[in-house]
Amino acid sequence: MKRKSFAGMSCSIARALDEVGEWWSLLIVRECTQGTTRFDEFQRELGVARNILTARLDRLIELGIIETFALEDRANTVGYRLTGKGEALYPVLASLKQWGDQWINDGKPSTEWVEDATGEPLGEMVVRTSGGRPVSFRDIRYKIGPGAMPTTPATVENRNRRVLGRD
Amino acid sequence: MKRKSFAGMSCSIARALDEVGEWWSLLIVRECTQGTTRFDEFQRELGVARNILTARLDRLIELGIIETFALEDRANTVGYRLTGKGEALYPVLASLKQWGDQWINDGKPSTEWVEDATGEPLGEMVVRTSGGRPVSFRDIRYKIGPGAMPTTPATVENRNRRVLGRD
Repeated sequence: MKRKSFAGMSCSIARALDEVGEWWSLLIVRECTQGTTRFDEFQRELGVARNILTARLDRLIELGIIETFALEDRANTVGYRLTGKGEALYPVLASLKQWGDQWINDGKPSTEWVEDATGEPLGEMVVRTSGGRPVSFRDIRYKIGPGAMPTTPATVENRNRRVLGRD
Repeated sequence: MKRKSFAGMSCSIARALDEVGEWWSLLIVRECTQGTTRFDEFQRELGVARNILTARLDRLIELGIIETFALEDRANTVGYRLTGKGEALYPVLASLKQWGDQWINDGKPSTEWVEDATGEPLGEMVVRTSGGRPVSFRDIRYKIGPGAMPTTPATVENRNRRVLGRD
């Protein structure tokens, strides 16, 4: 599929997919949450050529999703770790894990995530209102936001009409 | 980056990315949550050639993420809509939206999602324990799950040692 550039689009999902919508980017973020820091560890885990991995890490650094840091035990070598922006992707990873657990691995995942301190399992990632009611996309109305573009009102009106049956 | 096949891997995240880890797949799912059902609507919204869109929709049908249905007002033409497996991706979309809202659109999204019935905004997608405590990946211990493969114990041990500093 020819890639349409989303840079001019204001939709946060499209813009997020511009940054992390290629399979390798979230896999690198996943590696970081699994404690991978060294170039050769990423290479081994992801099974990818050095030059290509270099380009991918550089791209994530450019986007501010990962950053380099000095490795204590290896002079002149840097490690890679998540920035705040990168760590903020954890709900995306957890949602993907739970979806894969249920819909691809038939509820029998190879690993389970529990809180280290208590052993308590993870809660289910559910889309809720601020008051806590679970909602599906059919319960959601789009509103024009503070970053609206000239085309936003028509987009919002069209979406609400199609999903809710009215503007 | 040369794509490593994840079919033999048990990690739910890797397998989920095998199915929806290309930018276009989640954009098609997003379109469905915005009420898009007709082929020409997907084509217009996504700006893509007919033959390529056909292949992408066929792939999502094959994966059981979307399904066709008879359009009431157009004989001999099918519409496309999410299956249960496809609708279950909504937490992934909501997490991506909120991440894009905050980290790309500087907290000023073009659209806001509210509950239609009450106008209540969406709650923040947060990774929590089943008891409700917010957790980061640094609080999480991996446990061997019911779908473990022969390599899983070493993976789990390695991950917990690196992130938690012990097995």
